[in-house]
Amino acid sequence: MYYFDNSATTQPDSQVMETYLKVSQDYFANPSSVHKLGVRSHQLLDAARKQVSEILGFASNEIYFTSSGTESNNWALQAIVDHYHDLHPNKSKLLISSIEHASMTKQFDLLKERGYQVELIPVDSQGFLNYEWLHSHLDNQVLLVSTMLVNNEVGMIQDLDRLTALLKQFPQVIWHVDAVQAVTTCLDECRHERIDLLSLSSHKFHAPRGVGILAKRSRIENQPFIYGGGQEMGQRSSTENLAAIVATAQALRKMSEQQGQIKQKLGQFNHRIRQTLKENGWQVHSPESGASSHIICASFAPIPGEVLVHAFEAEEVYISTTSACSSRVRSDHATLRAMGLADQESESAIRISMSSQTEATEVDYLLETIHKISRNLKIGK
Amino acid sequence: MYYFDNSATTQPDSQVMETYLKVSQDYFANPSSVHKLGVRSHQLLDAARKQVSEILGFASNEIYFTSSGTESNNWALQAIVDHYHDLHPNKSKLLISSIEHASMTKQFDLLKERGYQVELIPVDSQGFLNYEWLHSHLDNQVLLVSTMLVNNEVGMIQDLDRLTALLKQFPQVIWHVDAVQAVTTCLDECRHERIDLLSLSSHKFHAPRGVGILAKRSRIENQPFIYGGGQEMGQRSSTENLAAIVATAQALRKMSEQQGQIKQKLGQFNHRIRQTLKENGWQVHSPESGASSHIICASFAPIPGEVLVHAFEAEEVYISTTSACSSRVRSDHATLRAMGLADQESESAIRISMSSQTEATEVDYLLETIHKISRNLKIGK
Ligand SMILES: Cc1ncc(COP(=O)(O)O)c(C=O)c1O
Ligand SMILES: Cc1ncc(COP(=O)(O)O)c(C=O)c1O
Repeated sequence: MYYFDNSATTQPDSQVMETYLKVSQDYFANPSSVHKLGVRSHQLLDAARKQVSEILGFASNEIYFTSSGTESNNWALQAIVDHYHDLHPNKSKLLISSIEHASMTKQFDLLKERGYQVELIPVDSQGFLNYEWLHSHLDNQVLLVSTMLVNNEVGMIQDLDRLTALLKQFPQVIWHVDAVQAVTTCLDECRHERIDLLSLSSHKFHAPRGVGILAKRSRIENQPFIYGGGQEMGQRSSTENLAAIVATAQALRKMSEQQGQIKQKLGQFNHRIRQTLKENGWQVHSPESGASSHIICASFAPIPGEVLVHAFEAEEVYISTTSACSSRVRSDHATLRAMGLADQESESAIRISMSSQTEATEVDYLLETIHKISRNLKIGK
Repeated sequence: MYYFDNSATTQPDSQVMETYLKVSQDYFANPSSVHKLGVRSHQLLDAARKQVSEILGFASNEIYFTSSGTESNNWALQAIVDHYHDLHPNKSKLLISSIEHASMTKQFDLLKERGYQVELIPVDSQGFLNYEWLHSHLDNQVLLVSTMLVNNEVGMIQDLDRLTALLKQFPQVIWHVDAVQAVTTCLDECRHERIDLLSLSSHKFHAPRGVGILAKRSRIENQPFIYGGGQEMGQRSSTENLAAIVATAQALRKMSEQQGQIKQKLGQFNHRIRQTLKENGWQVHSPESGASSHIICASFAPIPGEVLVHAFEAEEVYISTTSACSSRVRSDHATLRAMGLADQESESAIRISMSSQTEATEVDYLLETIHKISRNLKIGK
């Protein structure tokens, strides 16, 4: 089995799962219980929070654990934005990149109903934000700017320094960054000081499913999205998923410690895959520079993406048609459309995505498979 | 270690955790991925949903997996209620029992801000709902009635048949039941046909943390609370926590299969504990009949609950001061207050809570400890 669908989800790391299991047995008590088993659980939770905060360059009390990247994004846009708007009723513009994940875009109708103006920041043909557009649209009515760090379909990385420069005159604008796809190769960028809100998701970096992170600078006032027993410093209620949180902190630490090696390794793999695709007549949509090496989006028009996925699957290679979250629902290709790609190209698009655990032998096999499939399908083309 | 804080959380069952681990390794693919690994994951998810639906007496497409009991309660009150209100703008009254968990009560301010009238259904001195009050307050402006099935602090079980009779003339009223504490001894009651919305939480029945269930009759229109990739039949987005969901379904099945034995065993344990408490001069607040046998709330006034918890802890017995969720935040005792208990009594209250896995030898030790502690503390009284 050759798994190249790591942007959809990764296989849990076995060492991390051992931690999960150990914590779920040895620290099963509720961190809110006043007895000493509860206190021990709470201390472990605090330690995990501290570890995550140091990796992300936030303070410990700025890290909130949620259940998913999606929940973090919903918390940011629904509760925190709404609260900020109550404080600043004249600000009701949200400038959001046109290439966001469904966990952002599917909230737009609700936000519009609530009276917000949602304006989409356009991207160029390579998927990079149009900074001129953003510059000309930033004004005192803007409440929030949201820009995904690494795009989940195509992989491009947005330039946080340029965004920071643009935001310089607007210190009161909340800047949210969906960094769910950024952990594999852009973990350091998450430490950018100007970022106010940062969303992450455990299952994209070999941690168990079910943990999201919302990092929020304390300069931004908070407002709960999920109300109840007052866990997560009063801001996100539910009995804490301690074992998964501790495992997530460990997995994140591994990603941080190995970031240099991972980047180097995946950079090489990316180069080889890209070359092989081009040699075989594929069009590669992920930009040559400025993209995360773990994602390659390409098409072999006019063969539909689904047909390509199944052709790879027949060779035991698992890839996807761009975003997995929505691919079962419909082939959406929002990012490719925003980049202005022709329908035929985008409908043929597939995504090959790697992780820190991808190995050279797997890549070798992938390249052979690309050769083979391309040869076979060219006849049909 | 003698753990009697099972209403706060239970220790994961080892067989259930094996399932968790197996699924997280063998079915790690994203259920939304179109390749066959994704399809296999999706089939397993469907199987878990079906299993849960059969146990709860709902249809398979009426079961939604969330991240916690708290999230299920927030979904019900915030999104579903709001949507129903859009459809029926003249209905804005919410009648909610006065003994709900914080995951309900902490939403009241928000609901009031949104224009709802929240009215609390009073309870009698034993914690049972005042049906006369409810009868006289039910009218065509009522949108929702919410009544917890088993109370988390004291254990009383509300009479669903009587509630059904009262609701008979109001078929359009949404009836929500927080059944988070009901799985141990009242799982069959969850199958009550009139219930529209039912909330459950995995970690209260030896399943891994991080799975909530919201069962919703299809006659009630849905509205997402968390928006995104369209998982959970479009209604609750986030990559599905498949391993924890499958493990939860298994744990729930065990609870269902063993319900008769559990009830009998815990009934006997409850009787013995209750007797011993009384013999030693404790006041037992959990009603003798009509309460779940897994929870016993009692006090030894004027000794504060916290002192009692630590006295038990010194003997390696872990109990809690009523609700764990909020006990670290403040000693709240909302249920005891609603029952009209004097402050001195409620501030001395502790909760002893058992689970399907509680054993006779543990109860023996608990009884000895009650004798010992009562003797020692009586001197100080
Ligand atoms: C009655 C009741 N409802 C809701 C909850 C919240 O469940 P969770 O901790 O899974 O969010 C709890 C327990 O914490 C509870 O006892
Ligand atoms: C960029 C991006 N944001 C958000 C999400 C949602 O994360 P989760 O599945 O943890 O809800 C995903 C992946 O699914 C993603 O790729």
